[in-house]
Amino acid sequence: ICATLTPHYCAPPNAAEIRKRLGIENAVAFDMNAQCTGFIFSCAVAHSMMKTLGFKNALVIGSEILSKLTDWTDRTTCILYGDGAGAAILSDSEDSSGIKSVYLEGSNDFDDSLVCLSALNDSPFAVPQQANTKIQMKGGKVFTYAVGAMKRSVNKVLESSGFSLDDIKWIIPHQANLRIITSTANRLNVEMDRFFVNIDHTGNTSSATIPIALHELYNTGQLQKGDLIILTGFGAGLAAGALLLEW
Amino acid sequence: ICATLTPHYCAPPNAAEIRKRLGIENAVAFDMNAQCTGFIFSCAVAHSMMKTLGFKNALVIGSEILSKLTDWTDRTTCILYGDGAGAAILSDSEDSSGIKSVYLEGSNDFDDSLVCLSALNDSPFAVPQQANTKIQMKGGKVFTYAVGAMKRSVNKVLESSGFSLDDIKWIIPHQANLRIITSTANRLNVEMDRFFVNIDHTGNTSSATIPIALHELYNTGQLQKGDLIILTGFGAGLAAGALLLEW
Repeated sequence: ICATLTPHYCAPPNAAEIRKRLGIENAVAFDMNAQCTGFIFSCAVAHSMMKTLGFKNALVIGSEILSKLTDWTDRTTCILYGDGAGAAILSDSEDSSGIKSVYLEGSNDFDDSLVCLSALNDSPFAVPQQANTKIQMKGGKVFTYAVGAMKRSVNKVLESSGFSLDDIKWIIPHQANLRIITSTANRLNVEMDRFFVNIDHTGNTSSATIPIALHELYNTGQLQKGDLIILTGFGAGLAAGALLLEW
Repeated sequence: ICATLTPHYCAPPNAAEIRKRLGIENAVAFDMNAQCTGFIFSCAVAHSMMKTLGFKNALVIGSEILSKLTDWTDRTTCILYGDGAGAAILSDSEDSSGIKSVYLEGSNDFDDSLVCLSALNDSPFAVPQQANTKIQMKGGKVFTYAVGAMKRSVNKVLESSGFSLDDIKWIIPHQANLRIITSTANRLNVEMDRFFVNIDHTGNTSSATIPIALHELYNTGQLQKGDLIILTGFGAGLAAGALLLEW
């Protein structure tokens, strides 16, 4: 499953091309667009399909080339975004590791907080779009939603799993903006040293932020088997969610 | 969930915009690109999420504007495609109706049987694509895969559900090409009058063909509560699948 809002192809899906280039045979492949929550939503879908349909392993990818959607004359957005990709393998294992709890939400964005029309625009039967095909964002609206939504998402996965915040070693938030992350930590009463942050060198890579951060955290040696962690994010749409998992 | 390979937006997903325009509140929304199998894959995902994550209802949409991807100078493809949309509501009900069996498959397309690059192409950090952003299809390769894949998919959902072909009132195939449908019927030894065909007035609308056909069949009055039906399709990638359900 490839989470992306900037696919390389209309056909085949990115996921099928990745499967081919990796030499993987006989895997079901599709792309998902759930904006900056794409990786969380895709892991939730992979988890559900493994529990229900008999799949044993899933490769979940978040991959974006946001530089294609960036308006370089708009300093309020062009300094924020990055290109990047990350991935994780989920397996339907017998041990206690893996996803313990899932929370996903969606609500209507009446403020059009973050909008980007598709560049795909030349049907003889459709009126050409006049609107901008680069990202247009109302930062204040996103901020307000983001902090509340990540706090709520973290609390929901704790509630449904029976764990408390003290049990959680790391929270890996979507890397959109440091101020959103610190505000979420404050609202949750968690010290910032349990929030993993790498936005200083990655920028906001949308659906890729969380798998990239997970990889960087793992490489520091601070993530050990048995650790409970929470991944949480928010995105355009509006959407938000969290996964509580045992590493 | 909106299955589409021709989304109107990069952000938000089509599904979120549809949710807003329908006045639906608090529904999780995302798009899926699984090509012409998009509706089948999306129904399988909705089914899995309802069984695993506690969702009670899902609105699954297939929607395409393939005229945006059509090369009007290529008579081998431009006469085939249509624009269209269809939808179905799935509920996690207590009665015997609904999805009984799911089969999904994917395999690598070493022949590039159907390819269409995204028009999204103007990053200052990426080499501009030289390739065509209109659908390029090798019809013979698609035909060979399609007939075998739909036959296999139908047999797989029968096998895992315990039903036989005689129990099935209707087979609703992806409407890509009448010759593919008649060949599949021949290979399965099923009379064509149990295959629903509407391609004469819709064309191939990719992920929209099956929900449109389902709606048309329902409107004829020939689909009754309790009927067992199979939806089956194939698509670029390569991908194929089937759902066996009780209406």
